Amino acid sequence: MDKFLDIIDELNGFIIEYCKSNRTILNTAVQDLIKGGGKRLRPILVTLAGKFGDSDKNKLLSIAAGVELLHMATLVHDDIIDEAKLRRGQVTAQERFGKNVAVFVGDYLLTKSYTLFTKQLSRHSLNKLNKVVRLVCIGEIDQFEEKYNININIYDYLKRIRRKTALLFAISTYIGAYESGLRGKSLYYLYNFALEMGMTFQIQDDLLDFAGQEKKTGKKIGQDLAAGIYTLPIIYLLQMEGYGEKTIEILNKDIITDEDIKRINDMVYKSSAFDDSQKLGQKFLDKAVNNLNKLPDIQVRTEMKYILDWQLKRQV
Amino acid sequence: MDKFLDIIDELNGFIIEYCKSNRTILNTAVQDLIKGGGKRLRPILVTLAGKFGDSDKNKLLSIAAGVELLHMATLVHDDIIDEAKLRRGQVTAQERFGKNVAVFVGDYLLTKSYTLFTKQLSRHSLNKLNKVVRLVCIGEIDQFEEKYNININIYDYLKRIRRKTALLFAISTYIGAYESGLRGKSLYYLYNFALEMGMTFQIQDDLLDFAGQEKKTGKKIGQDLAAGIYTLPIIYLLQMEGYGEKTIEILNKDIITDEDIKRINDMVYKSSAFDDSQKLGQKFLDKAVNNLNKLPDIQVRTEMKYILDWQLKRQV
Repeated sequence: MDKFLDIIDELNGFIIEYCKSNRTILNTAVQDLIKGGGKRLRPILVTLAGKFGDSDKNKLLSIAAGVELLHMATLVHDDIIDEAKLRRGQVTAQERFGKNVAVFVGDYLLTKSYTLFTKQLSRHSLNKLNKVVRLVCIGEIDQFEEKYNININIYDYLKRIRRKTALLFAISTYIGAYESGLRGKSLYYLYNFALEMGMTFQIQDDLLDFAGQEKKTGKKIGQDLAAGIYTLPIIYLLQMEGYGEKTIEILNKDIITDEDIKRINDMVYKSSAFDDSQKLGQKFLDKAVNNLNKLPDIQVRTEMKYILDWQLKRQV
Repeated sequence: MDKFLDIIDELNGFIIEYCKSNRTILNTAVQDLIKGGGKRLRPILVTLAGKFGDSDKNKLLSIAAGVELLHMATLVHDDIIDEAKLRRGQVTAQERFGKNVAVFVGDYLLTKSYTLFTKQLSRHSLNKLNKVVRLVCIGEIDQFEEKYNININIYDYLKRIRRKTALLFAISTYIGAYESGLRGKSLYYLYNFALEMGMTFQIQDDLLDFAGQEKKTGKKIGQDLAAGIYTLPIIYLLQMEGYGEKTIEILNKDIITDEDIKRINDMVYKSSAFDDSQKLGQKFLDKAVNNLNKLPDIQVRTEMKYILDWQLKRQV
């Protein structure tokens, strides 16, 4: 996403300055999260969406930072659930400070984001945002409850990733546009564009757990699988004749070894599970494009399109 | 606090209804928290404070519920840090569902409280509240960082309990009054009254860790001590000739046994540590009374006074 480096740099600077604290833990946690890089897709969406309206640069920067801080807060709490040691190659807060401190580091980031939102957002946007944050929490709880459940179906999966990921993409885009004065159908298309893109993004992300390169993602292959989080390719595999039973046999084992993960990984590629997942991702991408095409044909639309194209190619 | 049973009943009903969800985990968590009872001091403060102005009953009920939900969210996250199995005799969320789920149960409650605040509070109150929540988080992180630190002084302790407890008392009272139209000096006195009361409350609460009866508090005696949280009586004890060295010797042990806790407990009583702590608590209480006395002499002032008197007598 080199195209948006200027947006990202400005955002990183804003976040570091805004979160400066005389608590070492908090500064370190924020710096780790910033250093971890990440695509900053949500704040980029805020910024670009604003251009469909009449945007105020400073206001949008604050909102974009609020959205990224909210995302960071969920990452910190998410890493507690996943017991993740690394996030984008950087040590996670829960690994560095322990789960206990990480809980309040996440709460702190959440509060900092709400402080920005309270200052910048209209009550309408605040209400919409609250609703999304609530659904994100429910999505995380669902994901935890669905762990190791071999009966999970595609509908459960899609509902989960909608809540876990896509809604935050959608609301970021929505508030960027709404707070820049956009109303009516364009706002609706923009929201849907980002929602569908979020679905593609998460499917792609889940595929990288199979195909991804450890060095780039900072994540061991098969990590979700080992943690009992069954994503789209596994769900397809479980339903496939000739593969389903073998997969269940492995997943039902008490301890899943690296060898087991490799066997499942091989089956995902050998069967059509990987391709089917990609196809479903493509379907959401098409829907995103459809919504985008209904928007006014201005420069920023091309930039939004660029993000979509990048989705298909990304390996991180 | 039988005097306020009608307020408490209405509040409990509102919270259960408002938090109804089709997720068993969330309903159970909320019911456990409600069943745990608790004094509901913060929502009572909201309600009473409103009577100094021109209060709207429904609006205040929503705000009071928001404040209690915020408090419950911090309890859930707090129990994760403390690894507490029981809270007021009820199983904690972290014990029932595991730390992992408890993280998002807390986040969910936080979001539900913010949804109420967004609907009911002026931007002025929202900004003040955000600031307090941020300081509560910092207070929790500080408490964790100060664990097992035998060099902690009274100033550190007072700063910690101000953030951990007193500020939420103060802001609850402030927004109850402010949102009922109260302005000027009375608002200032009310805020200070609740802040000082919060300090007394936490000192009293910490004293109960030594004197409290397990059955009533649902908390084993010396639990804070065993967890490395050194409260006022310990800080006094550490500074006392004839007791300090013995205390350090025990606290520096690798494992603190029940016998050790009993020895420290005995020293707290034998020395003036317990009495000195009570005296400091009384000082804050006096300040609270002073502020209260500057407020208009109306019926609700007597009710506020009642809460203060109850503080001194409470054993739970």
